Amino acid sequence: MSSQRATAFVPGHVTAFFSAHPADDPAVAGSRGAGVTLADGVTVRVSAADVAADGATGDAAAADAAAAAATADSGSRTIDGDRGSIGAVEDVLADLNATGADVAVETDLPIGAGFGVSGAAALGAALAANAAFDRGRSENDLVRTAHAAEVGRGTGLGDVVAQARGGVPVRLEPGAPGVGELDGVPASARVEYVTFDELSTEEVLGGDTTALSAAGEAALDRLRADPRLPTLMDAARGFARDADLLVPEVAEAVDAVDAAGGEAAMAMLGRTVFALGTGLSDAGYEPRACRVDAAGARLVDDRDRG
Amino acid sequence: MSSQRATAFVPGHVTAFFSAHPADDPAVAGSRGAGVTLADGVTVRVSAADVAADGATGDAAAADAAAAAATADSGSRTIDGDRGSIGAVEDVLADLNATGADVAVETDLPIGAGFGVSGAAALGAALAANAAFDRGRSENDLVRTAHAAEVGRGTGLGDVVAQARGGVPVRLEPGAPGVGELDGVPASARVEYVTFDELSTEEVLGGDTTALSAAGEAALDRLRADPRLPTLMDAARGFARDADLLVPEVAEAVDAVDAAGGEAAMAMLGRTVFALGTGLSDAGYEPRACRVDAAGARLVDDRDRG
Repeated sequence: MSSQRATAFVPGHVTAFFSAHPADDPAVAGSRGAGVTLADGVTVRVSAADVAADGATGDAAAADAAAAAATADSGSRTIDGDRGSIGAVEDVLADLNATGADVAVETDLPIGAGFGVSGAAALGAALAANAAFDRGRSENDLVRTAHAAEVGRGTGLGDVVAQARGGVPVRLEPGAPGVGELDGVPASARVEYVTFDELSTEEVLGGDTTALSAAGEAALDRLRADPRLPTLMDAARGFARDADLLVPEVAEAVDAVDAAGGEAAMAMLGRTVFALGTGLSDAGYEPRACRVDAAGARLVDDRDRG
Repeated sequence: MSSQRATAFVPGHVTAFFSAHPADDPAVAGSRGAGVTLADGVTVRVSAADVAADGATGDAAAADAAAAAATADSGSRTIDGDRGSIGAVEDVLADLNATGADVAVETDLPIGAGFGVSGAAALGAALAANAAFDRGRSENDLVRTAHAAEVGRGTGLGDVVAQARGGVPVRLEPGAPGVGELDGVPASARVEYVTFDELSTEEVLGGDTTALSAAGEAALDRLRADPRLPTLMDAARGFARDADLLVPEVAEAVDAVDAAGGEAAMAMLGRTVFALGTGLSDAGYEPRACRVDAAGARLVDDRDRG
């Protein structure tokens, strides 16, 4: 029994602080740290190529793009309607024997700005491809596959497991389900964010992360002793400073929010500032806003969305 | 910093099958098995007694009930607007030093019918009391507290950890966070249910559970080998039969759904049948319907609800 078509939603994730824990086995590799998942996220639609080709979607533009990008060996790949692929998504599809599928990734989040879009796309592809092709994998299996793909591509270490959980995830131990360990800060909050420019995750994670990881461990100890949102934000600011990752525009915005009585920090790794409540608005910025995502990654009923 | 008032929502949970794993330490005790969490659930509102007493809620009936039930040592307790308390909720409040709070439990689910209402109320009270009184506990801590209270009262073994996760939780190993282990069947589905009468969880769990647990382990092995919803339903039917828990009205409904081409099973432990999609409607019943809950237990913004 195969539904031939499925859609998944995965929340964005801004990392507040982290320590890097590389390992040969990508399911064991990962990061410790904490962050906030966002109701703004990534939607991934997967369909068997022949289903899309019959035009039953009624979406002429998508069908055209699909036809344009399709090859003999793999289906079409689009990102926000334009032809494009993501390495970790391809690895997930290969693992699920679903490279022939048409895969459409859609997001309102900025890409390469610290929102974990690549991890979200990989996890969404895993959930949707498993459902569309009825592969019969469990949730832990699918999270493990997406985590391994993301780690293998060097584009992230902890976004996938955090995005699978939702809320305000705390990564107590690094790694995929069955290896890593998670907790969470219980919180429902409005989050604002502003992005200035891109920052390469691969570049930072590929360098010497010793000092960064020491700062990340110290921040995690603080949050575990007091798992509250204001403590998370303060630990994030300390981490950015100690790990020497602050960039001028971000530092300026964090200071402006603080001066206006709010709580802001830098999203790791991006030239992005996120704030609780109306922190950035109060400081005179024009941020985008959403809420903490309560659910984590999930299949969505095609009747519910688009 | 205390918000003085907070609300949590916890999904209902129908257990498909389980094995019982008692232990002296209630965080270690629990069950293995699987079930389905429901978007129909339990809402718990917690407020510091003096906040409710000032009438700022604008809910005159609730304020009256609160005043009626309040004592010197503990705040008011209501269940669906009527005075009433739940043992596991009281234990959670004591653990959080919040017995003075006014606590209102609201649910559309039948009580004592296999939906995990007591566990949901305990977990909702933990989340909401922690937020209202700013106790600074982590999510795992709060789940652990509610799980221990539920196990201690003998009203459930696995609902709390399942309700914390949401979706279609598979309890691989029994116990609270840090001890137990969870997976999930990735699925978004409509669920229908009909309840015939109450069944005492305490009575069944208090008896000899050897045969029941053997049947539960066999069902779990089947689901782990094939984590799909139809397999879960089939394993649930086998469990109810092998554990000799089927009651006549339930057996009749399950057979009727099967005859109509659908998938149904008994909710453990209640005189309740649940079915996928429109299974019960198709068989001529007049069920209540909701969807699988994607999020699990969560704080809800008071601006969002009520």
